[in-house]
Amino acid sequence: MQQAFRCSQSVTREREDVNFQFTEAPIGGAAIDATGSPLPEETLQICRQSDAVLLAAIGGFKWDQLPPEQRPERGLLGLRAGLGTFANLRPAVVLPHLADASSLKREVVEGVDIMIVRELVGGIYFGQPRGFTTNQQGDRVGFNTMIYSEPEVERIAHVAFQLAQKRQGRLCSVEKSNVLEVSMLWKEVVTRVGEQYPDVELTHMYVDNAAMQIIRNPKSFDTIVTGNIFGDILSDAASMLTGSLGMLPSASTSDDGPGIFEPVHGSAPDIAGQDIANPLAMVLSAAMMCRYGLNLPKVAEHLERAVSAALDAGYRTADLHTPGMKKVGCSGMGEVLTRCM
Amino acid sequence: MQQAFRCSQSVTREREDVNFQFTEAPIGGAAIDATGSPLPEETLQICRQSDAVLLAAIGGFKWDQLPPEQRPERGLLGLRAGLGTFANLRPAVVLPHLADASSLKREVVEGVDIMIVRELVGGIYFGQPRGFTTNQQGDRVGFNTMIYSEPEVERIAHVAFQLAQKRQGRLCSVEKSNVLEVSMLWKEVVTRVGEQYPDVELTHMYVDNAAMQIIRNPKSFDTIVTGNIFGDILSDAASMLTGSLGMLPSASTSDDGPGIFEPVHGSAPDIAGQDIANPLAMVLSAAMMCRYGLNLPKVAEHLERAVSAALDAGYRTADLHTPGMKKVGCSGMGEVLTRCM
Ligand SMILES: CC(C)[C@H](C(=O)O)[C@@H](O)C(=O)O
Ligand SMILES: CC(C)[C@H](C(=O)O)[C@@H](O)C(=O)O
Repeated sequence: MQQAFRCSQSVTREREDVNFQFTEAPIGGAAIDATGSPLPEETLQICRQSDAVLLAAIGGFKWDQLPPEQRPERGLLGLRAGLGTFANLRPAVVLPHLADASSLKREVVEGVDIMIVRELVGGIYFGQPRGFTTNQQGDRVGFNTMIYSEPEVERIAHVAFQLAQKRQGRLCSVEKSNVLEVSMLWKEVVTRVGEQYPDVELTHMYVDNAAMQIIRNPKSFDTIVTGNIFGDILSDAASMLTGSLGMLPSASTSDDGPGIFEPVHGSAPDIAGQDIANPLAMVLSAAMMCRYGLNLPKVAEHLERAVSAALDAGYRTADLHTPGMKKVGCSGMGEVLTRCM
Repeated sequence: MQQAFRCSQSVTREREDVNFQFTEAPIGGAAIDATGSPLPEETLQICRQSDAVLLAAIGGFKWDQLPPEQRPERGLLGLRAGLGTFANLRPAVVLPHLADASSLKREVVEGVDIMIVRELVGGIYFGQPRGFTTNQQGDRVGFNTMIYSEPEVERIAHVAFQLAQKRQGRLCSVEKSNVLEVSMLWKEVVTRVGEQYPDVELTHMYVDNAAMQIIRNPKSFDTIVTGNIFGDILSDAASMLTGSLGMLPSASTSDDGPGIFEPVHGSAPDIAGQDIANPLAMVLSAAMMCRYGLNLPKVAEHLERAVSAALDAGYRTADLHTPGMKKVGCSGMGEVLTRCM
């Protein structure tokens, strides 16, 4: 199993008793070094032919000065678009062991279990037109288009309502419809789709208020659905409830093709090679891959239980370490997990 | 003095020994009821002819179902645009008395003093084109344009650098330049303007990371400069550091004309008429009006000291009340303040 936790790999499911066939393919910085492109055509092909993509973080200081089109992020955005993974699921679950690791008070975060459903292949990330031009006054301008179509909102809304049904049955749709037309359409379509899910309680919230409520009373949320950039911002804010970004997995799924499973954290180039990174977000991403991408829910539970057991036993990587706990490195945590399984 | 704290008023400065001449003019819900428009032409004229505009919150349940163009928010956006108040200053200061009121741990928020400088009359709030249309597939779409020109970024950058000079000399520019062209231009222009302020330390941060760092380590920030919608979201998040939105003032200034001074909080229609609202954000907005709008820094300090004194003396409105403190209503707090002055 342990190799399932390696990074930048695509995975082909074979049997329920879990034999994974791995194909490794470079993306982001590694791909730039190897091929000059952050998303080589061959990588996209390999991903398309796989049952799921287990993805590692993609950037680093080394590539920060490249022109935008050649930067590692473009590889990530290209892969999301290339696979059409429109539904990005970002859970923010506060494990009881770690409720003190947050900058928020224990009583505020204890028991938090939020699922953020972020639209991932539309909105301002991909909207056309975009670019640089000169305006009527002769000044240089930069511009992007935040745009959603009815079918784009419908499909993400269905995913969110169906997830909410399996959770506490409450869905909060986040937008800025008091200012933006794109948000008015969003709200209207989500409301209409909601009529098909009478068992889900739908509420609406402006994005500024949501950023506030996530900090003020995170337990008030169950499932959140929102657009690409609002989801980017809110999921990072929500990640802080859990105390460590090193704990947070994500799943990005499409209607049919392979999904992408990756930790929410970045590549943390500042600690590269020191064997101190927290591998749990990657392990939990592998669990999401098994649950949402490969239909192996038992394997998913198995992995999640191992993570809980390791934490129960007091093992912590540096980012989560508190007095009295057993400090382990990245590979040390890996060994603990295999023993816990 | 006390009438300076009343709402929806414009104020004309007369003398340094503080005789205010007030003209009241409706905006938002009150204006819709009186005239059908959220920003009557007469209101805009009165504001233009004043030295400063002291503004109250503008919405309420009653007007929530109106079509977007007629909603209270349009009055606010119209006033900002009409007066060209491009620089919105939103301080998030954690007063020692209230460090426990936050959902964040005392040690995380104690001593926080952040100034968010939000661009207020550009970006996606006002960008053209915007609206609804049908795309090539025949689907209905809603869209908005996030756009900034070089001069727009330059002028807000100058305001932010000059504020940072008077503060701790650190400015963090927040954008999403790893994805958006509008942010690439923003970053480039802010960097260039920064060359004129070698005494200010300029850093750059992506908006998702900023949403995280504000929660994780708010003391790491001094002054933040960002675009309209990012500023909307981040300032609401930052407001939570202080424990009560009822404490937060804001100032919106232009290059020459009158500024707008208003609390960050909304109209809180759920508690209207109960005399329990916290008036301190409005009082502190009046202080910002004196400092940034009327060049009456002594009056500003006077007001701010009265607020501190009232808190020192243990007076709290319901939103801030904790055991052992003296609970007062909105008008009660007003009386306490006049006694403290
Ligand atoms: C790296 C960046 C392009 C990406 C995004 O903005 O989507 C990241 O922040 C994320 O949330 O996955
Ligand atoms: C009411 C709304 C239009 C406004 C905004 O988004 O600017 C408010 O949220 C604010 O921050 O002042």
